[in-house]
Amino acid sequence: MRIALDAMGGDHGPTPTVDGARLALDANPDLSIVLVGDRTQLDPLLDAVPLPAGRAEVVHTSQIVEMKEKPAEALRRKPDASIFRCWQLMAAGQVDGLVSAGNTGAVVAGGVRTKKFLKCVHRPGIATVMPTAKGRCVVLDVGANVFPKPRHLLEYGVMGSVFAKHVLGIEKPTIGLMNVGEEEGKGHDLVQKTFDLFRNSPLNENFVGNIEGRDIHRGAVDVVVTDGFTGNVMLKLCEGVFEFIMGMVDQEVIAPLSAEKEAALRAVQGLVGKFHYSAFGGAPLLGVEGVCIICHGSSKEKAIANALGVAALDVRVKLNEKIVSELEGLPKNDEE
Amino acid sequence: MRIALDAMGGDHGPTPTVDGARLALDANPDLSIVLVGDRTQLDPLLDAVPLPAGRAEVVHTSQIVEMKEKPAEALRRKPDASIFRCWQLMAAGQVDGLVSAGNTGAVVAGGVRTKKFLKCVHRPGIATVMPTAKGRCVVLDVGANVFPKPRHLLEYGVMGSVFAKHVLGIEKPTIGLMNVGEEEGKGHDLVQKTFDLFRNSPLNENFVGNIEGRDIHRGAVDVVVTDGFTGNVMLKLCEGVFEFIMGMVDQEVIAPLSAEKEAALRAVQGLVGKFHYSAFGGAPLLGVEGVCIICHGSSKEKAIANALGVAALDVRVKLNEKIVSELEGLPKNDEE
Repeated sequence: MRIALDAMGGDHGPTPTVDGARLALDANPDLSIVLVGDRTQLDPLLDAVPLPAGRAEVVHTSQIVEMKEKPAEALRRKPDASIFRCWQLMAAGQVDGLVSAGNTGAVVAGGVRTKKFLKCVHRPGIATVMPTAKGRCVVLDVGANVFPKPRHLLEYGVMGSVFAKHVLGIEKPTIGLMNVGEEEGKGHDLVQKTFDLFRNSPLNENFVGNIEGRDIHRGAVDVVVTDGFTGNVMLKLCEGVFEFIMGMVDQEVIAPLSAEKEAALRAVQGLVGKFHYSAFGGAPLLGVEGVCIICHGSSKEKAIANALGVAALDVRVKLNEKIVSELEGLPKNDEE
Repeated sequence: MRIALDAMGGDHGPTPTVDGARLALDANPDLSIVLVGDRTQLDPLLDAVPLPAGRAEVVHTSQIVEMKEKPAEALRRKPDASIFRCWQLMAAGQVDGLVSAGNTGAVVAGGVRTKKFLKCVHRPGIATVMPTAKGRCVVLDVGANVFPKPRHLLEYGVMGSVFAKHVLGIEKPTIGLMNVGEEEGKGHDLVQKTFDLFRNSPLNENFVGNIEGRDIHRGAVDVVVTDGFTGNVMLKLCEGVFEFIMGMVDQEVIAPLSAEKEAALRAVQGLVGKFHYSAFGGAPLLGVEGVCIICHGSSKEKAIANALGVAALDVRVKLNEKIVSELEGLPKNDEE
């Protein structure tokens, strides 16, 4: 399979993307990569350490969307930006997937503009994988759709479940709706209507109902459904809390140790590595034709390589076919 | 000053509330407490270890709102519930404040029913104090108002700032609006309109604009303004992440140690104590006449005592007078 890599996206320029491509090609023998970016920056990197012959090529683009740029403006002003070229390649069927660590809003906007959503999908959503006391869970949407309709959340439940099953290997994923309390009738209009949609759908069997913020890391469910505003705040909050607590652990638990300080420090670093966002490898934008994986802006080569690996896996397991097949089983609804 | 304590509220019955009252009376010489609850349960506890003479009394109530009970139903069916009696005492001017570890929804509903909001306040909001890398910040609303209007959020900015200044001792508190990105124009309608309200208000000077989830624990601002849905999810998510990470630290960092395991364990327990919700002592419901502090349902005596201490402090610094004075400086607005 062929995956387009936005070689210019992210905070660190093309070096980690090229190095990440190299790692991913080593790890996935069935993968070839199209590096989309500025040839004048990419060629010296590729000359220095070439990628495997026949499995990597460069598609030149002259523009880059900056991390702080407004997506809508970027779409208008920079048609040749690397991230939009990746979407064009996918829309034209020249690649099976794309990976970008660039401006998340621009990645989503590029996808929305192609209008190539999967059959039965009203709005794509970004899924992210979080660690829990029992393993892993999928949380979506974490930022593509900040003011969704109930139907969108129902579809996220389907897409998250298919992802949990076929990518995370969870046999019968349970679904929870993020809310301010477990009892039915809690929360605002959106979650109340969404609750009813789930209860009256074929998903009801796996739908455990409302969950609260503390349930995620306890591993209460395998799929957490939420609107893109709440989900985005949650995702970044987790990052901040993790950073804060590990800083406190370093300062107040590790620093005072003497003989065993080195061992404890290594264990802390192991924990950080295990739960760092780079360990899973990006957040898939689910609901679009093709595969799109969005990486954290500060991704290094390992995170890029993991994301390319997940993109390859999504293609391999035919994730989209399975999503469409499940969505076709939902009651019809014209709500956009 | 006199504070009413919902002696029946919380997961652990009246024992921790009575013990918490005792600790708080020791720590606050100007405090007297009205224990509101079932005399048949309270009297044996008070007979066993009496509270200081003349500084504590019992007001008997026959009903209790259960933790999982729907607040609106409880209001209808249980007029003599301890939490509602606390509100009645405050509305009648017999106490200056109230503290409850009971059903949060019922505490808020009881307050809303008295209709005794502060002048210029459209809707009360629950504030919570969170630790940050630089100290502490106030986050509100964390659950009283799950679908607020922009004006409500502006008022939360005022109330949070007054609280940060006079209770946390932060001279000139900065305010951030929780959003999905820092750039202006991010997010849904509510946050976009709220952003404009702040920019065109006297708060503009201290308003740093949009912040993201990861900014809270980095200490980017002193007051975090958000809707009650997002805030409630955030609060409980922090609890879950903290619990999860400390569990992992125990398991992967502390357990493998040998000679220094005891010392490291004590340091971890110190951290847990420092950042546990009980350390600050409850979340004030701001915007009501009188003082109302809501405690975590699982509060033990220390948390109850801290909450009583915060209630006393709020009365002492005349928090409400200062809130009204600041709100009177806002441009008029009829939005409810």
